[in-house]
Amino acid sequence: MRKLILDLDTGVDDTLAISYALGSPEVELIGITGTYGNVLLEQGIRNDLAITDLLGHPEVKVYPGLSHASKADSFEVLPVSAFIHGQNGIGDVAIPDSDRKAETESAVDFIIDAVNTYGKDLVYVPTGPMTNIAAALAKEPDIAQRIGSIVLMGGALTVPGNVDAWQEANISQDPDAADVLFRSGAPVTMVGLDVTLQTLLTYKETARWRQLGTAAGNFLADMTDFYIKAYETTSPHLGGCGLHDPLAVAVAVDPTLVTTLPMNMKVETEGATRGRTIGDEQRLNDPNKTMRVAVGVDVPRFLDEFMTRITRLASQAD
Amino acid sequence: MRKLILDLDTGVDDTLAISYALGSPEVELIGITGTYGNVLLEQGIRNDLAITDLLGHPEVKVYPGLSHASKADSFEVLPVSAFIHGQNGIGDVAIPDSDRKAETESAVDFIIDAVNTYGKDLVYVPTGPMTNIAAALAKEPDIAQRIGSIVLMGGALTVPGNVDAWQEANISQDPDAADVLFRSGAPVTMVGLDVTLQTLLTYKETARWRQLGTAAGNFLADMTDFYIKAYETTSPHLGGCGLHDPLAVAVAVDPTLVTTLPMNMKVETEGATRGRTIGDEQRLNDPNKTMRVAVGVDVPRFLDEFMTRITRLASQAD
Repeated sequence: MRKLILDLDTGVDDTLAISYALGSPEVELIGITGTYGNVLLEQGIRNDLAITDLLGHPEVKVYPGLSHASKADSFEVLPVSAFIHGQNGIGDVAIPDSDRKAETESAVDFIIDAVNTYGKDLVYVPTGPMTNIAAALAKEPDIAQRIGSIVLMGGALTVPGNVDAWQEANISQDPDAADVLFRSGAPVTMVGLDVTLQTLLTYKETARWRQLGTAAGNFLADMTDFYIKAYETTSPHLGGCGLHDPLAVAVAVDPTLVTTLPMNMKVETEGATRGRTIGDEQRLNDPNKTMRVAVGVDVPRFLDEFMTRITRLASQAD
Repeated sequence: MRKLILDLDTGVDDTLAISYALGSPEVELIGITGTYGNVLLEQGIRNDLAITDLLGHPEVKVYPGLSHASKADSFEVLPVSAFIHGQNGIGDVAIPDSDRKAETESAVDFIIDAVNTYGKDLVYVPTGPMTNIAAALAKEPDIAQRIGSIVLMGGALTVPGNVDAWQEANISQDPDAADVLFRSGAPVTMVGLDVTLQTLLTYKETARWRQLGTAAGNFLADMTDFYIKAYETTSPHLGGCGLHDPLAVAVAVDPTLVTTLPMNMKVETEGATRGRTIGDEQRLNDPNKTMRVAVGVDVPRFLDEFMTRITRLASQAD
């Protein structure tokens, strides 16, 4: 069975990503590596432990990653992140702390070890900044050739960003790290706003989770309703919330959910458009394309898989 | 037979676009509408008349378009345009003036009349700023629904621009006009830098034209060599010159040369990224996609068609 690592700044949609992964019998979630972004590193790790407990999977280990961008000294949560995800990252819904603690092994070492152990059977899914994987690539560059695949949530190629006209939030946190990953030669699929703003969830779907009458169902419904409500302010034209992070997990499980362009990508790290994800004009005519960028998604099939898997998990978890 | 209008700021690659059109028996070039950009309007019209004479097609009429951007009062040729296309627009190669003059009917009225006459059989190919077509849409909005198709050279979706990191040259001349076209609902195919920087010509190909021993062959070879030489300075990584404008004509003749993404596009007209061509996030989930953006091109087949058609024309034209 393929092995999965989620790299998360947990986060409402990160929580849905965990749920999708745990609801997918095709993959084994062998660990979560913590990062910063929607929340501080420590809050994300706290959430990861509490959520996996609540969802009935206390066997999932959590590894602490780096707490700030590769060229920064510190990190503070942006007000807009707290508005969208809540002060605690999970829609200000209270769930019990876990009795467990994060592992002592670092996220960077865990990623390298997992590539050494599982090689082509390993899929790594970062849904926050690319800081941890860039650090792993710096420490052990040849994991780029030895890893099975990387499916990231981040970037925007054919649509504007969500931070400004050209920057998507995850990439904007650490453009330098993302550029390292994009140029590394690793087999990366970019699942960006191009597709994740097409996969929308509404109160109608979350009501199904609440009707389960389980603690997990109530938690997922209340948390996601907070997120949908924030979207009514930030993106009223959408009519729902974007299922960013769970779509990346879904593509890791089943790549046929999206159509992709084979490309050599870069992240602009200088100038006015720092943080933009775009084709690398220097490698436009290189026949070897190392990345795939999702530009189309089978929305009905994804939403069906999303609801089936997460509803089943939430019904069994309590 | 399908009818073709070329809207040109002639220009080296505009000249190759005329040559491709005149070398294509599938379409009839019913007129050239003049615009500004690579050269002043008047210089472009002078070139159009002289080139069609030299290529043995003095029946092609030329209609004067607007001389500057829709929200500007005047236009001056940028130094970089003169560097790439020469002071006279055609690589500083001297060819005889035509005895003919431009028509008295304006480009805008000619475009509207042609839609009225030919409707779905008309293909309009703008390879400069979109000023003329935007003015025609302002005067007669329903031509958007009645025209056969518009295949434009301009923009950049998946690669950086060539004016700056986000602006392609044709769109940058009049972003407001291009935005009008992109939002008009007209059936537009965008042939941008995404594909035109993949279709490269070198001295090896121009040598074949010179070997023909015709005035047309010598002209095309000398003019294009000037352009290739400029590319050695501006884009040394390419190893040739981009066949921008002729690719748009080739796609108008045979749409199967490119693979396209169906999209609803916009041009950013405000803020730091004014002039960027990008998906319209407000219409991302509108199932009716009015535009197609070329993201892949069959390079060998296009280059073969390009050389076959233009070499045949240049061998017969003198």
